[in-house]
Order: sequence, then structure tokens, then C-alpha cells
Amino acid sequence: MRLLVINPNSTASMTEKIGAAARRAASSGTEVVAVNPPHGPVSIEGYYDEALSVPGLLHAIQTSPAFDAVIIACFDDTGLDAARCLTDRPVIGIGEAAYHFAAMLSNKFSVVTTLARSVPALEHNLHRYGLSVRCARVRSSEVAVLELEHAGSDACARISAEIGRAVEEDRAEAIVLGCAGMADLADQLATEHGLPVLDGVSCAVRLAEAMAGLGLRTSRRGGYAPPPAQKLRATA
Amino acid sequence: MRLLVINPNSTASMTEKIGAAARRAASSGTEVVAVNPPHGPVSIEGYYDEALSVPGLLHAIQTSPAFDAVIIACFDDTGLDAARCLTDRPVIGIGEAAYHFAAMLSNKFSVVTTLARSVPALEHNLHRYGLSVRCARVRSSEVAVLELEHAGSDACARISAEIGRAVEEDRAEAIVLGCAGMADLADQLATEHGLPVLDGVSCAVRLAEAMAGLGLRTSRRGGYAPPPAQKLRATA
Amino acid sequence: MRLLVINPNSTASMTEKIGAAARRAASSGTEVVAVNPPHGPVSIEGYYDEALSVPGLLHAIQTSPAFDAVIIACFDDTGLDAARCLTDRPVIGIGEAAYHFAAMLSNKFSVVTTLARSVPALEHNLHRYGLSVRCARVRSSEVAVLELEHAGSDACARISAEIGRAVEEDRAEAIVLGCAGMADLADQLATEHGLPVLDGVSCAVRLAEAMAGLGLRTSRRGGYAPPPAQKLRATA
Amino acid sequence: MRLLVINPNSTASMTEKIGAAARRAASSGTEVVAVNPPHGPVSIEGYYDEALSVPGLLHAIQTSPAFDAVIIACFDDTGLDAARCLTDRPVIGIGEAAYHFAAMLSNKFSVVTTLARSVPALEHNLHRYGLSVRCARVRSSEVAVLELEHAGSDACARISAEIGRAVEEDRAEAIVLGCAGMADLADQLATEHGLPVLDGVSCAVRLAEAMAGLGLRTSRRGGYAPPPAQKLRATA
Amino acid sequence: MRLLVINPNSTASMTEKIGAAARRAASSGTEVVAVNPPHGPVSIEGYYDEALSVPGLLHAIQTSPAFDAVIIACFDDTGLDAARCLTDRPVIGIGEAAYHFAAMLSNKFSVVTTLARSVPALEHNLHRYGLSVRCARVRSSEVAVLELEHAGSDACARISAEIGRAVEEDRAEAIVLGCAGMADLADQLATEHGLPVLDGVSCAVRLAEAMAGLGLRTSRRGGYAPPPAQKLRATA
Amino acid sequence: MRLLVINPNSTASMTEKIGAAARRAASSGTEVVAVNPPHGPVSIEGYYDEALSVPGLLHAIQTSPAFDAVIIACFDDTGLDAARCLTDRPVIGIGEAAYHFAAMLSNKFSVVTTLARSVPALEHNLHRYGLSVRCARVRSSEVAVLELEHAGSDACARISAEIGRAVEEDRAEAIVLGCAGMADLADQLATEHGLPVLDGVSCAVRLAEAMAGLGLRTSRRGGYAPPPAQKLRATA
Repeated sequence: MRLLVINPNSTASMTEKIGAAARRAASSGTEVVAVNPPHGPVSIEGYYDEALSVPGLLHAIQTSPAFDAVIIACFDDTGLDAARCLTDRPVIGIGEAAYHFAAMLSNKFSVVTTLARSVPALEHNLHRYGLSVRCARVRSSEVAVLELEHAGSDACARISAEIGRAVEEDRAEAIVLGCAGMADLADQLATEHGLPVLDGVSCAVRLAEAMAGLGLRTSRRGGYAPPPAQKLRATA
Repeated sequence: MRLLVINPNSTASMTEKIGAAARRAASSGTEVVAVNPPHGPVSIEGYYDEALSVPGLLHAIQTSPAFDAVIIACFDDTGLDAARCLTDRPVIGIGEAAYHFAAMLSNKFSVVTTLARSVPALEHNLHRYGLSVRCARVRSSEVAVLELEHAGSDACARISAEIGRAVEEDRAEAIVLGCAGMADLADQLATEHGLPVLDGVSCAVRLAEAMAGLGLRTSRRGGYAPPPAQKLRATA
Repeated sequence: MRLLVINPNSTASMTEKIGAAARRAASSGTEVVAVNPPHGPVSIEGYYDEALSVPGLLHAIQTSPAFDAVIIACFDDTGLDAARCLTDRPVIGIGEAAYHFAAMLSNKFSVVTTLARSVPALEHNLHRYGLSVRCARVRSSEVAVLELEHAGSDACARISAEIGRAVEEDRAEAIVLGCAGMADLADQLATEHGLPVLDGVSCAVRLAEAMAGLGLRTSRRGGYAPPPAQKLRATA
Repeated sequence: MRLLVINPNSTASMTEKIGAAARRAASSGTEVVAVNPPHGPVSIEGYYDEALSVPGLLHAIQTSPAFDAVIIACFDDTGLDAARCLTDRPVIGIGEAAYHFAAMLSNKFSVVTTLARSVPALEHNLHRYGLSVRCARVRSSEVAVLELEHAGSDACARISAEIGRAVEEDRAEAIVLGCAGMADLADQLATEHGLPVLDGVSCAVRLAEAMAGLGLRTSRRGGYAPPPAQKLRATA
Repeated sequence: MRLLVINPNSTASMTEKIGAAARRAASSGTEVVAVNPPHGPVSIEGYYDEALSVPGLLHAIQTSPAFDAVIIACFDDTGLDAARCLTDRPVIGIGEAAYHFAAMLSNKFSVVTTLARSVPALEHNLHRYGLSVRCARVRSSEVAVLELEHAGSDACARISAEIGRAVEEDRAEAIVLGCAGMADLADQLATEHGLPVLDGVSCAVRLAEAMAGLGLRTSRRGGYAPPPAQKLRATA
Repeated sequence: MRLLVINPNSTASMTEKIGAAARRAASSGTEVVAVNPPHGPVSIEGYYDEALSVPGLLHAIQTSPAFDAVIIACFDDTGLDAARCLTDRPVIGIGEAAYHFAAMLSNKFSVVTTLARSVPALEHNLHRYGLSVRCARVRSSEVAVLELEHAGSDACARISAEIGRAVEEDRAEAIVLGCAGMADLADQLATEHGLPVLDGVSCAVRLAEAMAGLGLRTSRRGGYAPPPAQKLRATA
């Protein structure tokens, strides 16, 4: 099985880190191809970055060799709907993957993300997916995305402190880490706090394997119907 | 990996059929152990049957040899919350598995279940999971559970007709089959109607593999905290 | 009029206390028959206890002499839906009774229950009944059910302190006591805090009298349709 | 016990009919005092009539001899919030009484009211009470309020036909009659259609008895706090 | 263009202040006619005051010379639905105007109103308009309406402190001032806190101009259908 | 006042038509500058077109001379959130403008848009804005966007027929036309059907004038905070 994992920002070191996390999470026999658009925002923190990264993300899908499923490796689930119009293979956002998993492992979860600027976009996604009724609160740790790339920062300690507040104030039974760059912190934080801590990259990898393994396809009716051929040609 | 698949009704032929469907869906290397309580309702159609099947279901979990995840193979997700108190391994209901998958493959789905009597329980589950905002309608085909066991019935034709109405009237982009006994009809109906038709058994098997493969556990905090030992002893 | 009041746990002293509370609340001319299953959990704190108590509860309904209404005297409204399939007489849970009353005596109420473990089940009930939009918050006092049975505990003081926080932090206009065992504290706490404090047992008794007095019946159509006779025989 | 039943419109014959229905529904020992404002709309069909009837309704409360509870006998629950500011006795609207009862006797109910013009006000009430999640649909029979006063009209047949559609199209398990003037049709329609048909007047009478019998009071905190004395004097 | 601005309370000095605020907000060429009922509550703080002010408000609409739109200048949007039955010209409440504007200038806003007693009515309005999903919290400053009329009070400082809490605790991105009497504080508070602070009077004036300028009319179908002529005559 | 009206598709004839409609709707003294991106989708029908049009739309904002407000003239409100990060001037989508207006002119409205493919995106917007509770249904007329550009098509007749169904089946009290290209049909259809028919372009123009005229600004806190300068430079 071949998974196309797209980091929609243009920071190659982050793509490598995400790719490594995806490979660690994948079943044996799964090939992970991690890519990023050559241009576009260096990190995705809020609506503006999201919007600008989507064309590159779509282009990556359109020009990729055959794949069995697509993973959008940004916690905002950037461009998810548009990507689903381009292929009948399952397309999974790492945000939605983590939310859906958390909803089946706990009664109520909280999200700990990077900057306050990113909170409303995540809240809107949860509301739209219907899972806002299962989410106690979306919290920001005020750790910037690229800070997570620097060894020696106190990023993990600040995220851990925010998890502590989620347990205490929100009565969260599970935590979703709200950034692809936090993938390698999940196990340590789960042990520390004694509850499930979910990383979207690994959830999405296994979920994509699950759907592709069953031969499931994205619906071609209604909102995800493929665009007419001349539109695809014009924009490819 | 070892999956404990529990058919909460006491009809052994249905357990066999579910077990076979689960094995077809499972990855190589996954062992499926399909069981049912020795006593209790012969089928689960509505609240009363649900309630009576739960103690047998819990007993099956408590007395089973080690497993990596549990699947509750009744579309009502019978006893799901209680089961989660008994083990920290993931516990997945086939109803929720299919709903969550459908929500990631379509904008809006409809459910086609057996009898009208079962509709409110499914609506309540969807409302609670938050996914009622993604479900256009829960429809009954008026095919009884045990009718699905009889070769030569027109059950499939009646289910197909109901799917046709869901596409026409609800603008459903995907269909969830609302009974474990419909597992073997999914592929044929998907081809016939040209949209994803989801069977909960196979969705749950792959989802359980996904969660267990990542080492994820059910939260032990809050609502799923394990009961005190003396209670477990008293009721085991 | 004859009310069947079922304490779904097997602690006879608690049944006596609930029976006494029900009799104090009942109109003259109402006979209260308080029963509990001979076996099953000694208290109901969370999903597991709930599930195990239901068959005994249903058996009590099936084997009871004639009654005009049934009251389920556990704040989780344990087995409510299944019970409604067994009789066309009104079946009232003490949780729902208190919530519905509180919604007509205040703009917004809070619930003060026993343990954190019980909170999600109550939140799910409120969500399902629709009354979560009228409930500010479900709070736990960390007083265990059986602690309420011991004279000399500081249970009442801790419950009172939690009510104080509900008034201050939630702007609750009324309080619902979230445990059958708190029935005898309501008046004192109402006086102390100067707002309505609702006990589910007394609300349910009068509500059952109200419905039965009007000759109202539980619907036999759809979700509460009686199970087929052979199923009832098999499980009675 | 003394119940003050206020018909907020000024049609005395309708007050008599409502009073008679209330007395039939009341327990022995309950005195029903049915009044209407001397002036104001002759029937309440929509927002404008509602608004104009409220001052007379409030005046009736302020000038009435002592009572144990108040019933607002218009299905729009006209002036309910304002009335609750005037007394700490329970104040019950016949609409809310019927909705709350229906929510405990069925999974889902439909409302059959008079004119299309009245539908949005009822929908708004249901939404606010939280009970819209339990209501399948609010339907109008296009029978005007005062038509219900005329023997020989085909009003009952048209209401019955609308109930038939609610059962067929909405899968309603119970019906709420959406007008005080339909009180005397409930039993006949319940028999005809084989499901609970709820009349708000009788539900409200028994509910008011239930609350008053327990000594319950409307909260004086927050939204129902009594207006300052000088305001009451100025407007009495 | 001629706007009829109705202060539904009977305090003429407040009408003058509202009229002046409306004129400052209006486009050149717009005539503002600010009126108040001669009798009725001197301020509107809660449900009781609301109810009593409506007949005077409706009378003002019925007896006013021609206008292009109506503004109800009380933050509870007092009598809005009834007023819409009386004219096909747009009728705008200052509460709804500010909420709708805030929803287009921010992801999430908080409301700062006068007394705790007024909070539930505003929450109900937001719920009904659908905009409660965009409102973080309705807060009371415990500044009484008429206090706002007194120079030298510390009202503005207390409102400002409450805005500070909304920014800190609710992560509000914009603030809606919840009282017509706060109209002249908006600019200063916006500068002080560095976010949009919306005053309902000015929002409503420009919104009314916008709708009337396009020739838009209130729907005459369904809930806002005009009452029959004989009812209008009887109550005018 | 200067309004920047952006047609996010690249069909210049449609930009002209939208510009003309905007000028007809604008107050005297308002200058309308209508632009479109030079490249990108020729029409916006669904998620894929939406996503590809956003960078051009953002570029238009970044490179435009000074303006007082921005209007996004596509009914999907394409790129609305990202656009709000680029300027503190009000940014109004024609979809949201029409929905908010309809919510103040009726109890319930329906939307009539172009193709079925576009329906889910509109439903998601309504859900997010909170206004789905006021919308009866989003309907497609199966008229393609560019068909609206052709004189002689029967587009208007088909849209009118769909409005007829909305009135009959949804009890819609107002209609929102779900495409910028339908702007010139609104008046005729309103007359024909006797209810408000709202065109988003004209609503947005007047709403933008209203907000800009009051000096209101988009919040700079939270989700709409401006991106860091180096990101803006990199992508401009």
C-alpha cells in the first residue's frame, strides 16, 4: 500500500519529520511518500497560511504517481474538501483523524494546539465535523510551529503544562495534540499525564490504511463530485 | 493481533457469519475470535433486546483470554460504554465505526437499518456521537434481522430500494448499512448504486487494528474509569 | 394509585430510604411499592453498574403485580428505554423528572452529583433529552453514593459547597441533586442557598401521579413498541 | 389547592371551555379559577395577538387572590417569562407542559396546531426549551381557533387527517395538540390513531398540582428575579 | 429616508440620547424620528419590563406617519416579532443588529450588558437567532440602565473592566455593548481595548438604511403575516 | 467610499455583470471597483474551484489601491477568513450578507443555488455562521453558473419553479438566491412569488457601506490577526 502524505507547508525539514513519524506509525508493507509543495507558506498558522498552501497541495495530488490514500499532514485539515474532489481514494486530514479516534477512546477530549491564532479554525472544523459536542475545549500553548523544530526549546514543558490545565479545568479524558510537529511528543506526554494523547499523523496513517485496505472510496456524488475535465486541465 | 468480536445476541449462526465477515476484512496476521453469549435475546431489535444482551456481552469480555481490541458486533453499539469500563484496550462498536468512516468519505450519509423499532436507538447514538449533523436520515427497510439469514428472501432487493430513496430524497452521498447481518451485501449495493456503502463489521475490524496497532488505549479517567475491584468480583 | 418505585441497585437500606422519600412526596391515596433487584451492583456509579442492574430492573417490572406507573429511582435513568418497552404505563426516571421540573422553574440549572465518574452519563442523558441547553454544568461533589447512607459524614457540607460554586460560577438559578440518596437533603439546601433544589425522587413521584392520573400511556409505536411475545417469554 | 388558569384572550366562552377541561383534569381537592383579561385579542394566533394579551395576563396574576400555581392557557405559552417574575409560585404554560410530557412518553412527537401563522412561534418555543430535538415537526391543520368553538364544523376531521400525516411522514410516536381549544378532542383522537395525543390544558393542570404539592417555587435568582417594588406599583 | 426609532421605555431623556446617537450614526439624508411610549416601564431590565412595554411600542408603530424602517432601541429586541406583523418595512432590533455585525467582524464575540437579571433574555435571543454559536459569553457589568444616565458614575470603568475579563477569559475577538444607553461609550472602549466594540443603535441605523435603501420588505408569509383587519381595529 | 468587489472567478463578463449590479445597489457617493483574478477557475462550482480561486483573490486585496471595505462576490464566501487576515477593513461575503438579511426579514428562509455539487459547501457555511437554524433548506436548481450568462436560456423559469417548491414544501418565508450571477433576477422573482427574494451582491454592498460608514473594523485579535510581515512579503 502506498500513502501520499502531504505536508502543505514548504518547510522540508518538517516534511522529513512528518514522514518519519508516518513511517513509524505505518504497518509493515505500507510505503509512505512524504512531500511538500515547493513554494508557499513555511508554516501554517491560521487562515491566511491555510489558503495559500492549498493550490500546491492540490498540485501534489494531481502530479503524484498512483497512491492508495492521501493524508493531509496539517492539523487545520487544510484543503481537505478540495482534495477529495480530485481523487476517489480516501483523503484523511490529521486533525479529523485524531478527533475521530479521541471520540472513541474517551467521553470528552481537549485539543492543545500552537498559537491562539489557530484556535478558531480548529473550532470551526470540530463544529463542522459534529465533534464539537465531544470536545471540551481547544487550547493554545503559545508554542509556535517552527519552535517545535528546535531542540532545546521548552516547547514540550509548555505543552505539558497546558495538558495539565485541560485535565484539571476541562475534565478532559483524552488530549489531541493540535500540530503535526508535535507527533514525537505524544507517547511521553501520555505516560506523564496518564491518559490517551493522540497525534494526528499516526492516527491518519492507520486510518488511511484501514480505509484503503477495505477498498473504500470517497463518494463521487454531491459535494465531492469530480470537477469537469476542462477545469482540471486548465488548472493542473 | 487478536480481536475479540462479540455478537451480543445468542444466535450462533449469526456469530459465524459475522466472524467470517470480520476475517475477510481483517489484515493478514490478525486473529478474529468471534463469540456470543450463551443466553439472551436471539436478535437485537430495539431497546429491550439491547438491555438484556449487555450482561452476557460484559461477561464475554471479562472471561476472554487476552485480546488487543474488542468489537461489539451489533449496530446499536450495545453496551459500548459499560464495556469500555472493563478494559483499557480499544472497544469499537460497529455502528460508530461505520458512522465515523462515512463522515470522512462523504459530506452527508443516510443509514438503512432493519425495523422501524430500531430507528430511535440509532438516532440517539448519532446525536450523542455528534454525527447526527452529518447524517441525512435513518431509514428502516422493514427487513427483520433474522430474515437476513434466509437465503432466498427478497431482503437485498428491499434494502436496495431503500438506498434508492435515500439517494433521491436525502441526497445521501454514502450509505451505512444498519445491521451486522447485512455485512455481505455492501459491495454489491455499492456497485449497484455507485456510492460508498459501508458495513460496520469491516469498518470496525480495521479501525480496531488501527488503534491497537498504535498502542492506543481507552481513557481510564472520568466516565470510563474501571469499577472498584469488589464490584468486579461481585458481578463477574 | 399504585406506583412501582424501583431502586435498581441491590442495597435494601437505600431502597427503604427511597421508598420513605417517595411516600413523603406522594399524594394521599397513592400507594408506593419500593423494590430492588435481589442481585446486582450495590450502588450505581457509572456505566458498568448501570448496565448490570438493568436485567434485574426489567424483571421487577415483569413480575410486579399491577401498577399505574413505574419510577426508576436511579439518577442515571438506568434502563429507562428498555423499561418503556415492557409496559404502556408511564415510566419515569428520577433524573429526567428533576431536569424537566428544573427547566420550568428556572432559566438555567446546574446538577450536583456524586463522583466524577458519573458525570458523562448524566451529560449524555441531558444531551439526549434536549435539556443540555438549559443546564449550565454537571458537577461532582466527590461524595460516594454509600457515603450518603452514613450519619455523621460531612457529605451534606461538601454538597452544599458545590452548590455554592454552581451559583457563583455557573449563575445557576436552580440546583438538581444528582443522586437518589440525596433526597432528604433538598429542603435544607434550598433554604440555605435561597433557590430551588430539586430531588428527583419526589419530582418523579408527582410526575408519575400526574401522568397516570390523566390516563396517559407510553407510546406503543416506534422505539417503544413491545417486543414480540416469544422474546418476552424467553427472557422473563 | 387553588390553580389560577388564565386564558390570555378575551373570549369568555373559550375561558369557560378551558376551565371545564381544567376541572375535568384536576385532582379532587383542587380548585380551578379560570379567568381572562376583560380586553385584548379575542384569539391568539401569532406574535401580534400574543404581545397584546400579555399586560392583561400579568394584571390577572397581580390582582388575583392567593393561588398555589398559575397556568397560562394559551399554546404559545404567552407571557410565561414575565409571569414568572411576578410570583414565586410555579407558572406553567400549556405548550411546555404538553411538550415535556410527550418527551417522556415517546421518542419523538409532532405538534398539530391551528394556522400556519402560529407555527414559527411554537418552533421558537421548542428550540428554546431544548425540546426541538425531540419534536419531529410542527404542523398546521389550517383550523382557526374560533372555528373550534363551533359545533358542526369539520375541524376535528381535519385535525385527525393532519395527525395521520404526522404518523406516516414524521414517524411521530405521540401527538401534541397545539391549541387550548382542542382540549376535548384528545381522547377521541388517541383512540382513533392508537398513540398518545396530549392536550396541554390537562397536562399543565396536573403538572402544576405536582409542583405545588411539593412546595416547589420558581427561582428568584437571575432572570426571574422580582422587579423592584416601584416598578410593580407603577405598572399595577 | 425616514427611520422610526422607538425607545420602548418611557424615559424621555434616554430617548433623546438614543435619538442623538442614531442621528450621529445615520447617513446624511436620513431623518431619525425617536419616540417613546408615553406610559410603561421607565427602563427595561428583564422579562417583566419587556412585556409591559410592547403594547406602547406597537401603538407607536401604528400611529406614526410614514417611515422606511423601524428600529427597536432596546437591547432585548423587545416586541420584535409582533412589530414585524404590523408593517412590511424592515424592523430591526438593536440587539440583533449588533450580534449580526459582530459575527462578520470576528470569529467570536462576548456581550457586556447591565444587570444579571437581563442575561437570560439575551441568551435566549442569541440562541433563537442562531448566533449563540458565535457568542462566547453574555456578561453583566452590574451597571443599572439609569446609572448610565448619570454623569460622574463609574459605570464606564466597570464596563471596561468587564470587557477586560471577556478578552482574557473568553478570548472574545469583539465586544457587543448590551444596552442602548451605552451607545456613546463604544469608540472610547474600542480604542482602550484594541478590538471592535459594537453599539447596537448605530449598527441598527445603518442596517435599516441598508435594507430600506434596497427596497427590502419583511415577509408577509407565515409568522409575520399581518393580523386580520378587525383585530387591528380592535386593538389600535 | 470605495468598495473593492472581487469576483473570485476569472470570467470578466461575469465581473462586469456583478459590478453593474453592485453599482445599482450602491448609495450615491459610493465607488465600486469590480475586479477578478487574471487566472484561475472560470466559474466556482464546488470545493475545488473555491480552493484554486483564493490566492488570486488575496492577491487582488493585497495589490489594490486603498478601499473602505471588500466584498467577495461568490456565493460560497470563498476565502473569506483568509481575506480578513489581510485588512482591518470589513470583508463581506455575498452569501453571508444575504443569509443575515434573510434572518431579519423572515422566520425561516430557503436558498436556491445552481448545482447539487455546490449544496454541501453552502450548508457548511450556514452551519458555521449559526444560521442553519434559520434556513429551511438549500436547494439546487441545476442551472449552471455560466448558463446564467446566456440570454435565452430557461434558467429563470427553472429557478422560479424551485422557489415554488421551497414555498410549498419548506414553508420558506423568504428566498436567498445562491449565486452572484442571479443578481438581476431577484426583483422579478420577488414580485412573482410575493415574498422577499434576496440577492447577495446588493445585500453585501449595502452592508459594507453600513459597516464602513460607521468606521467599524475587522478584529485583529485571535483568528483574524494579521500574518507576520515576512510571511506577507514571501507570498505577496
